[in-house]
Amino acid sequence: MSLPRIAIDAMGGDEGVRVMISGAALARRDHDQFKFLLVGDQHRIERALEAHPNLREASEILHCDDVVGGDERPTQALRRAKTTSMGLAIDAVKRGAAGAAVSGGNTGALMAMSKLALRTMPGIDRPALAALMPTLGEHDLVMLDLGANTDCDARNLVQFAIMGAAYSRIVTGAEKPRVRLLNIGTEATKGTDALQDAAAKLRESTNLAMTFEGFVEADKISRGDVDVVVTDGFSGNIALKAMEGAARFVGDLLKRSFMSSLRSKIGFLISRPATDLLRHHLDPNNHNGAVFIGLNGVVVKSHGGATALGVANAVAVTARLLEENLIERISADLSEVATEAAPKQSASQEAI
Amino acid sequence: MSLPRIAIDAMGGDEGVRVMISGAALARRDHDQFKFLLVGDQHRIERALEAHPNLREASEILHCDDVVGGDERPTQALRRAKTTSMGLAIDAVKRGAAGAAVSGGNTGALMAMSKLALRTMPGIDRPALAALMPTLGEHDLVMLDLGANTDCDARNLVQFAIMGAAYSRIVTGAEKPRVRLLNIGTEATKGTDALQDAAAKLRESTNLAMTFEGFVEADKISRGDVDVVVTDGFSGNIALKAMEGAARFVGDLLKRSFMSSLRSKIGFLISRPATDLLRHHLDPNNHNGAVFIGLNGVVVKSHGGATALGVANAVAVTARLLEENLIERISADLSEVATEAAPKQSASQEAI
Repeated sequence: MSLPRIAIDAMGGDEGVRVMISGAALARRDHDQFKFLLVGDQHRIERALEAHPNLREASEILHCDDVVGGDERPTQALRRAKTTSMGLAIDAVKRGAAGAAVSGGNTGALMAMSKLALRTMPGIDRPALAALMPTLGEHDLVMLDLGANTDCDARNLVQFAIMGAAYSRIVTGAEKPRVRLLNIGTEATKGTDALQDAAAKLRESTNLAMTFEGFVEADKISRGDVDVVVTDGFSGNIALKAMEGAARFVGDLLKRSFMSSLRSKIGFLISRPATDLLRHHLDPNNHNGAVFIGLNGVVVKSHGGATALGVANAVAVTARLLEENLIERISADLSEVATEAAPKQSASQEAI
Repeated sequence: MSLPRIAIDAMGGDEGVRVMISGAALARRDHDQFKFLLVGDQHRIERALEAHPNLREASEILHCDDVVGGDERPTQALRRAKTTSMGLAIDAVKRGAAGAAVSGGNTGALMAMSKLALRTMPGIDRPALAALMPTLGEHDLVMLDLGANTDCDARNLVQFAIMGAAYSRIVTGAEKPRVRLLNIGTEATKGTDALQDAAAKLRESTNLAMTFEGFVEADKISRGDVDVVVTDGFSGNIALKAMEGAARFVGDLLKRSFMSSLRSKIGFLISRPATDLLRHHLDPNNHNGAVFIGLNGVVVKSHGGATALGVANAVAVTARLLEENLIERISADLSEVATEAAPKQSASQEAI
């Protein structure tokens, strides 16, 4: 079976071409059946490829001069969908010249361009930004939406749950991932109307490929007993960043504490392998690669400040989603739900 | 000057009477000018007081048999405002028999009872739950709302900013604390309408006792460059719990890492003072005591699972707010704003 190519927006990312190319080259070591379409300034891409013959032999270059700016408004960027490296990488997915696009550029522009070019899947009203997050359990969890939709209704949240569960099945191998809605309490009466309605719908829909387990509070996300955390993009973004900030805060405090006395400094040097392990586990580069899920094509956002290792992780996430047919899985789950919901449609207009 | 008494809901808290009484006794060591009204089962309170003659000599007991349950709905608890320890502690503030109430019980019930008995201050539509949080800077920051109001409009957020700034002036000693609104980006176009409108109003109102500095993202809260973080209760609760959870997650990972090899175990033992320092800094008991701010009286929520040290911190927060006249300060700030806003009222109905 031949796998589709991965289009790389080579101009994206704060560090520019070199880090995107090095990252793609690193990822190809573990996924050597993939081919790449590198989109951006041909001259700079070729120079960066000199150090990576393994990537060069698997790549085609699509030249363009234009780049979406980091602070550019999405509406403005949309007008240059056919001339920018970001726009052309997405366009390659639309044309079928690639199966997925990876970019480290402007998130809002990437979202807007992807939505316009690829459209949402049948049965999905809005795409969401989904990412893997570390837990104390065996597997990472899938969390969505992380910022694509500021306001969400119950119907959006139910669709996010279905898409998140499909992603989680790939990550965990579980047939029915455990799904929860992020809320400020676990009692049935807590939270917004949208959350309560979404919970009611998910509780009713027993044929979904998931086990819906109610609400989860933000301090209990990472314990390893939930596989998919569903939320609106505003709360999801707040939770994600709060966690990142707190982890960094604790790291900074730890550093200060270790430097507070000679004894502690010595202890730090001896226990270096432990703190290195911790640093590795918490390094956002090791969890890089958020997916715009719900579109007719895979689009992966790499963090703007990612290292080559971070980009490699984002490309590896992309490769895995293509290998495991994420889009087809979501389609299958949605049509399953549609089949079940159909007879109910007459009774309730709001059935999914 | 004689300070008002502090009413303690002695039945609150998961650990019951003993921990509340021990905590109050601990707090009194640093605030020995305060007197206490201990509300709850007289017999159990007297037994707990046997170990704390210093608290006994400063306390009066108000007996009652009834206790608000941890899972009880606020509406149900409200009916027993005159018979429960929580209700009577708040009632003591209303009657002027105490200047403040502290409880470790059911948050929703405490909020509902406090609101009904004490009413909001003139100029405040809704009270908020405010807490101090650790930063890498010199001072703790004030964050509000942490869960009292799921939905907030711009007017609520502006009022929270004024109340939070008054609290922060007490904590930091700064005349104009630095205030920011929690958002998912710092660009002016990010976030909900309520956030954008609140930002516009705060930017206009240059006579407030604060420096309004725009938006802050959840990963940048604790760096020490913001004194007051203003948010709706849903996002605030999500952010607070996400940070707590992440800090615990990192702590757990650190423990695992230290136990991963003999070398790391030895390093851990040697650097024990450093990790103890970190544990102390992160222990929620050291930041216990969230204030329902905006009522005609001070009501402080102690965490349900707090230790005696945690309760002592909540009582110390209460004592400090009474010593520094939080309510009067907020009133003064509000009347200042009202005076300025008055001429504008004709131009805009929405002016504060």
